[in-house]
Amino acid sequence: MQETSLSDLEVAEEMADAARAAILPYFRQTNLHTANKLDDGFDPVTIADRNAEKAMRAVLARHRPEDGIFGEEFGREEGSSGRTWVLDPIDGTRGFISGTPTWGVLIALSTTDGPIMGVIDQPYIGERFLGSAGIAQVTGPSGTAPLKTRSTSALDQAVVFTTFPEVGTPEDRAGFEAVARQAKLTRYGMDCYAYALVAAGQVDLVIESSLNAYDIQAPIAVIEAAGGVVTDWRGGPAHNGGRALAAANPELHAVALEILRNY
Amino acid sequence: MQETSLSDLEVAEEMADAARAAILPYFRQTNLHTANKLDDGFDPVTIADRNAEKAMRAVLARHRPEDGIFGEEFGREEGSSGRTWVLDPIDGTRGFISGTPTWGVLIALSTTDGPIMGVIDQPYIGERFLGSAGIAQVTGPSGTAPLKTRSTSALDQAVVFTTFPEVGTPEDRAGFEAVARQAKLTRYGMDCYAYALVAAGQVDLVIESSLNAYDIQAPIAVIEAAGGVVTDWRGGPAHNGGRALAAANPELHAVALEILRNY
Repeated sequence: MQETSLSDLEVAEEMADAARAAILPYFRQTNLHTANKLDDGFDPVTIADRNAEKAMRAVLARHRPEDGIFGEEFGREEGSSGRTWVLDPIDGTRGFISGTPTWGVLIALSTTDGPIMGVIDQPYIGERFLGSAGIAQVTGPSGTAPLKTRSTSALDQAVVFTTFPEVGTPEDRAGFEAVARQAKLTRYGMDCYAYALVAAGQVDLVIESSLNAYDIQAPIAVIEAAGGVVTDWRGGPAHNGGRALAAANPELHAVALEILRNY
Repeated sequence: MQETSLSDLEVAEEMADAARAAILPYFRQTNLHTANKLDDGFDPVTIADRNAEKAMRAVLARHRPEDGIFGEEFGREEGSSGRTWVLDPIDGTRGFISGTPTWGVLIALSTTDGPIMGVIDQPYIGERFLGSAGIAQVTGPSGTAPLKTRSTSALDQAVVFTTFPEVGTPEDRAGFEAVARQAKLTRYGMDCYAYALVAAGQVDLVIESSLNAYDIQAPIAVIEAAGGVVTDWRGGPAHNGGRALAAANPELHAVALEILRNY
């Protein structure tokens, strides 16, 4: 099969559209909650998750057959191009089953050096955050706007997000709290939407742990395209998962990293 | 001035529309963050808050001049009808300044017995939850649907939300945690949107404290119209604020109340 003439970004958008169509019929389907399992034994979120990843893989089979794929639901498929699409069809399943509009579809395109393009898509709101070389933008209810991170450099002026207190070891949590104690405001439970808000210049820091590669690669690409910095808690690459520190700018990143290094 | 022929619900919707128009220009205005204060010394969220309450009061002056008003920003205005409109133009200001789509405009119509109609509106998503005698519905990105709470009766099957760990005394927090420990899933930080999710049959319990009357009256009306129960932590009325327990149904409410009574 030949590669089509679509750009990588166009392919990613087609994938995000396909994921939206696959997932939305299962979001807030209250009549499914009582049974909790559908006929084939899976719950609605699992079905939506799988259907969305299948739909995205079908787009790739059509347009990028030579690229590899690493997806949360169906694992790895080797490619021949040296490039890999890294997919999390529903990041934030706990948010999804609670009806909150803060889960998202995560799509990244990576080389061995890490992600070079990312999409964070929130299907219910109809909001899509894109980042790659030369482009950083959000399209949503208010139209299309550029993404640009904030210039907050002092921790006591920073707004910090995390999915803690729910996730992470006691050591992870202590690290997070050491930063949060000095911050202006701490908020919880936004799933991948918190990373989108860093890119959109609304919040300053996201600190998380226990991440998989597919949880963090799209956020890395979107945030870096918007001017931010994402590393692990030692200042190294975060794209293989584990602990992540996302910051609006290099100065603030350095301040938070100085604290997290102790954990 | 004569009362117009609009129904109370039509008046409430006109108010919510006016609030949306007043607030949205100030939501996610990243260029305002650096200065943090506008020319007249107020920050964007305060201006949006005030403008929205003024806009809603103007609708009431036109259509319901005999009703009283109690608003978060401009306080009480006595009426002659025995009815009061209770307004929180932006519930969840911390969410608002963080760019999350979980803050809301709260509008309730009350008698001395408590709220008889409520609106929870999320302007950015374009989502409106309504409840009054004979009507319980949400209109949003997926169209219009009836609101109906869940039938979850066992606490270990329940999803519980709160704005804790941020709000409340240590005693309040202990009460919340005593319930949350037994629940299936706990989520944080959704502002008034958590109450809307109870009404929409997505979550089972919301437990909060330190509320003002204008924080809880609209949620009470919407949740009760959808089949849920809202009281304080002793089983009495919650419409004057303080501690609130919102439950999807009477059975689950009784289970959670049994625990909260000890705090």
